[in-house]
Amino acid sequence: MFFLSPFELKGDIDSVFERDPAARSILEVLLCYPGLHALILHRFAHRLYLARIPLIPRLISHGTRFITGIEIHPGAKIGKKFFIDHGMGSVIGETTEIGDNVTMYQGVTLGGTGKHSGKRHPTLGDNVVVGANATILGPVHIGAGSRIGAGSVVVRDVPHDSTIVGVPGRVVRHKGEKTYDVSLEHGKLFDPIESLNAKLEQKMAHLENRVAELEKEKRRSA
Amino acid sequence: MFFLSPFELKGDIDSVFERDPAARSILEVLLCYPGLHALILHRFAHRLYLARIPLIPRLISHGTRFITGIEIHPGAKIGKKFFIDHGMGSVIGETTEIGDNVTMYQGVTLGGTGKHSGKRHPTLGDNVVVGANATILGPVHIGAGSRIGAGSVVVRDVPHDSTIVGVPGRVVRHKGEKTYDVSLEHGKLFDPIESLNAKLEQKMAHLENRVAELEKEKRRSA
Amino acid sequence: MFFLSPFELKGDIDSVFERDPAARSILEVLLCYPGLHALILHRFAHRLYLARIPLIPRLISHGTRFITGIEIHPGAKIGKKFFIDHGMGSVIGETTEIGDNVTMYQGVTLGGTGKHSGKRHPTLGDNVVVGANATILGPVHIGAGSRIGAGSVVVRDVPHDSTIVGVPGRVVRHKGEKTYDVSLEHGKLFDPIESLNAKLEQKMAHLENRVAELEKEKRRSA
Repeated sequence: MFFLSPFELKGDIDSVFERDPAARSILEVLLCYPGLHALILHRFAHRLYLARIPLIPRLISHGTRFITGIEIHPGAKIGKKFFIDHGMGSVIGETTEIGDNVTMYQGVTLGGTGKHSGKRHPTLGDNVVVGANATILGPVHIGAGSRIGAGSVVVRDVPHDSTIVGVPGRVVRHKGEKTYDVSLEHGKLFDPIESLNAKLEQKMAHLENRVAELEKEKRRSA
Repeated sequence: MFFLSPFELKGDIDSVFERDPAARSILEVLLCYPGLHALILHRFAHRLYLARIPLIPRLISHGTRFITGIEIHPGAKIGKKFFIDHGMGSVIGETTEIGDNVTMYQGVTLGGTGKHSGKRHPTLGDNVVVGANATILGPVHIGAGSRIGAGSVVVRDVPHDSTIVGVPGRVVRHKGEKTYDVSLEHGKLFDPIESLNAKLEQKMAHLENRVAELEKEKRRSA
Repeated sequence: MFFLSPFELKGDIDSVFERDPAARSILEVLLCYPGLHALILHRFAHRLYLARIPLIPRLISHGTRFITGIEIHPGAKIGKKFFIDHGMGSVIGETTEIGDNVTMYQGVTLGGTGKHSGKRHPTLGDNVVVGANATILGPVHIGAGSRIGAGSVVVRDVPHDSTIVGVPGRVVRHKGEKTYDVSLEHGKLFDPIESLNAKLEQKMAHLENRVAELEKEKRRSA
């Protein structure tokens, strides 16, 4: 009852092939994907945690961190086909909830805020992608299909199908539909400073035209 | 003389319970907190370093990095009740100085700049909190009670009781008094781009009113 | 034929002394520099990869990641005198190309975008420096001598001898000549928000003067 069913394992292996073009063979995936190792060990530790067995789940999580560089608290709820690529330095907190088909890269923190012991870590909807070194803090909700850009910091709720960039993170794209392939191109970022510059420059140019018109008028009447 | 005194150890263990709501028992803390392991091993290596014993301190630091994912140069001076939570990927440089009750998360760099061999790493005052994946570079001084937001990059001095956010980091809050609990909520960030936008929009609206007034005048006199 | 030549090894060791002021002796460098261990093991795995030996190169890379916290895909092409300082959490992708004398710190990602299997990782020119926790994504080209600031995210080409800062990264400095020593001071950053603020404030002050002039005129004629 505590171990991974063959169906779960197959789903977790399939997700590697679906999302990493460098994957070559099942043997390679089983031997060389620390994200898969961490996930298998976590699914086991999580069952012990739910059965309220003390200490052992934390020890498994600690051992997993040593072997894989990925730290998942045994309390975290993780959906089907979760894929952590590379994963070194990732931390997933106790009250985190992760939907199905979520992809996460290395250095990602799904962390808590405050000192209370209730729900204090993020909830990620289905198909979310979290880029390398991104940090999501607190009991925020990341809507299904959203992509958190590499190096971004998110501390507020994010609507579904959005793209987040920056420190702190801003929603830079949001649309109802998106093809699956696009959702993995976590490299296409947007520049919020350039955007602010363009907006203010345009407003100022408009105002300047009005002032120039007044000056022309003044010269004419003089 | 080289080993940790029971009092030091007690302070270091207490700091885990004070600052991590997920901590359950002393046994769990002793077995599963890599930040505590790294700190105990560092306190030992630092004494050997001060006694000018060659190579061994560096080897202990290197072994600690392998076991915990946390790299503390044996030369770093660290105060009482230092707490590194998770800690994977953190690097603390040779001439770093850390005050009492400092809290640090995973992926944090307290790094050096330049190639000279004198003081080249940061100094952190008491009660400082450094968020996940934050980077502090050079011989800068972080004032007591300040909080460095997750993912931020700091390369200048920071006054006491300030909050820093962004790449590069900006002081976004500064006040004389703060309750202890608040200082751990490293999730409440401030948006410097939104703030700049609001300020400039307000100025421009004021200017626009003056132009509109002039235009009205012109129409009246025409 | 598969092993490192003494000349290659000497170049790799020399680069540690040239770039880390904390390095004391050859023994210390050989024993305590995980970046050097990762590089030596990678140079071996890369030769097996070029000889089209299956699985083994990936296993070496996976073992190297476990030992050093640094993950270099065996396919990555790396030039002479590459130096990874600290390195925990760094990931270098399969189709990455790195020139000579490149320096990289911990938490750096040279990552891929998309799901196609051709060239999908960055190319770094000679003498490039990549700061801690920086992320470079996609088949972009980083020009020779450029410096990527700590915590920055780069998803576009970068010209030679430039300095990049921010999430997303912006070119903040660019000049033809630079002394070697300067290139290591990765702590001197530039603030793009402050710069935008200064530019817009100046423009607005100019416009305000013109409006004030018109208002004075109006009062005179009234």
